Amino acid sequence: MHIVSPYLLFIGDATDQLSIKMARGAADWRPELCIGEYSVAGCTVTTGIEKMSIEQAAKKGAKSFVLGFANSGGVLEKKWLPYILSAMDHGMDIVSGLHNKLCDFPELVNKAQQTQQQLLDIRHPKAEFSTGTGVKRSGKRLLTVGTDCSVGKMYTSLSLEKSMKKLNFDVDFRATGQCGILIAGQGVAIDCVIADFISGASESLSPNNKPEHWDIIEGQGSLSHPAFAGVSLGLLHGSQPDALVICHDLNRSHMRGLPESQFPSIASTIKLNLQAAKLTNPDVKVVGITVNTSSVSIEEGQRICQQLSTEFSLPCVDPMRDGTDSIVKTLV
Amino acid sequence: MHIVSPYLLFIGDATDQLSIKMARGAADWRPELCIGEYSVAGCTVTTGIEKMSIEQAAKKGAKSFVLGFANSGGVLEKKWLPYILSAMDHGMDIVSGLHNKLCDFPELVNKAQQTQQQLLDIRHPKAEFSTGTGVKRSGKRLLTVGTDCSVGKMYTSLSLEKSMKKLNFDVDFRATGQCGILIAGQGVAIDCVIADFISGASESLSPNNKPEHWDIIEGQGSLSHPAFAGVSLGLLHGSQPDALVICHDLNRSHMRGLPESQFPSIASTIKLNLQAAKLTNPDVKVVGITVNTSSVSIEEGQRICQQLSTEFSLPCVDPMRDGTDSIVKTLV
Repeated sequence: MHIVSPYLLFIGDATDQLSIKMARGAADWRPELCIGEYSVAGCTVTTGIEKMSIEQAAKKGAKSFVLGFANSGGVLEKKWLPYILSAMDHGMDIVSGLHNKLCDFPELVNKAQQTQQQLLDIRHPKAEFSTGTGVKRSGKRLLTVGTDCSVGKMYTSLSLEKSMKKLNFDVDFRATGQCGILIAGQGVAIDCVIADFISGASESLSPNNKPEHWDIIEGQGSLSHPAFAGVSLGLLHGSQPDALVICHDLNRSHMRGLPESQFPSIASTIKLNLQAAKLTNPDVKVVGITVNTSSVSIEEGQRICQQLSTEFSLPCVDPMRDGTDSIVKTLV
Repeated sequence: MHIVSPYLLFIGDATDQLSIKMARGAADWRPELCIGEYSVAGCTVTTGIEKMSIEQAAKKGAKSFVLGFANSGGVLEKKWLPYILSAMDHGMDIVSGLHNKLCDFPELVNKAQQTQQQLLDIRHPKAEFSTGTGVKRSGKRLLTVGTDCSVGKMYTSLSLEKSMKKLNFDVDFRATGQCGILIAGQGVAIDCVIADFISGASESLSPNNKPEHWDIIEGQGSLSHPAFAGVSLGLLHGSQPDALVICHDLNRSHMRGLPESQFPSIASTIKLNLQAAKLTNPDVKVVGITVNTSSVSIEEGQRICQQLSTEFSLPCVDPMRDGTDSIVKTLV
């Protein structure tokens, strides 16, 4: 699967910044891939990039129409079909990270056949994977892992990639979720593969490479999350990382979505991940910690990072406020 | 999904005992559900139960025609379609644990509509699962876990169930693989669910129950297997077991299918599983060890079990040679 750029980001009539996470991720991290944003009456939010119609975007060369919004159930509402059909008529592939599949709407399948455009359901991997082998691959790999879900693993990974590119590393960001896939133009929604193939799909995501090449792999879930730890472990084993970065968010008292669950310490997160990662890479090391400190002042955030850095003898930063250069320096 | 008994076990032209594992599992553990075995010219193996034709089985009341054989790719060969169509004409549902789906053969789908018989692809869960919650459920649960794949977790589980029934426990065997599902008549092929739902599907498999009720849950894979540990961990978290039984096979030098991998010790298997299981049940205990000693003499097998029993201060048995009464006694 390969998503062809440039993208027209369609945010519909969204009124909530969180609901346009897909569009914002692409606009924030790959502005060069995004030709414009298209919204309709009622929309009160924006990614900040230039607004334009389907016709205008087509004239400027847009190749993919991205459904950049999501409601809670990931449902594709019928009201959006005319916009999607029009985008295909204007020469664009359709990219969706919704739970509902584009391919399940006969009118879209017909139009796709007629126009030769692709319907890309990036949340539903189509590739046939093999089961994992655990065999060591060439090249280097870094995986972001978390105390919990939604603690900034994708943003940390992208910040690391940016920092490494600046320092002339040979590096690729490897996406494992729908936002990341849109940003990278490819990847595998790892929590959507059949359980038997989690590890095998993860292996295929960062294949053999040059010895000095780094893959920065977007982590998923947490080994301490009762719902998603299996995904996290399969991804960890398949990634066989040389380096781990621990991602954390302030002010959480329980695992995301589970009020009765216990939140793990950073120390136990380091211990659990190192222990499990050693199965496929005995030389794995933790090279840094990132914290989303957006809920406190810059000064307070820096104080917290400094404290964690001292406690664990590791660089600790907020990737959005500080960047991740200090972590990348440990990889040189 | 519910498989209606009695079963006619179809073993085709199989010549290898291992290839009729599905049929043998049902004949060994649920002879009362199996009305007969049906094979064709060339077949050199048997489950040992009465041989009969489709017509004879139908007259005796057979309700399900079980594809009890498998080739290495799990492919359904076209040559079997006439037998399957005939079985439907004789009032039987079709049960398959093959990789190929019955539902992907239009002639079978048409016949199923015409005869109102079911096509049951037990390796392909159809249920919509929720993600896991980690919330404690009522009733008691025992999960079999292993040093590796194929070390006797299903047989241990069924032996425990048998032993507990004999001692008047209120107990259910909960199946997580295709052989187990055929034996139980229901269950979830846990390695075939979407990764996001491993833990949630496992939770649904052993729902709230009476405080004294035991679910004996069939384990899958191993936390030390680089390909399948994610499945094992999701199943472990979702099962929230009160009791674990460690299953082991003699004479293994590496993980099944992976010559380069390291085989874990029983001690490290106990440690890993207890540590992970505590996330959803802090009171979890290991209550016994089972060993497949079929590769050595009975005396040597007993010596090995005695040695492990002393080393770990736990009952240790070969479930096929000794039964599992000594483990069940620790649950009273």
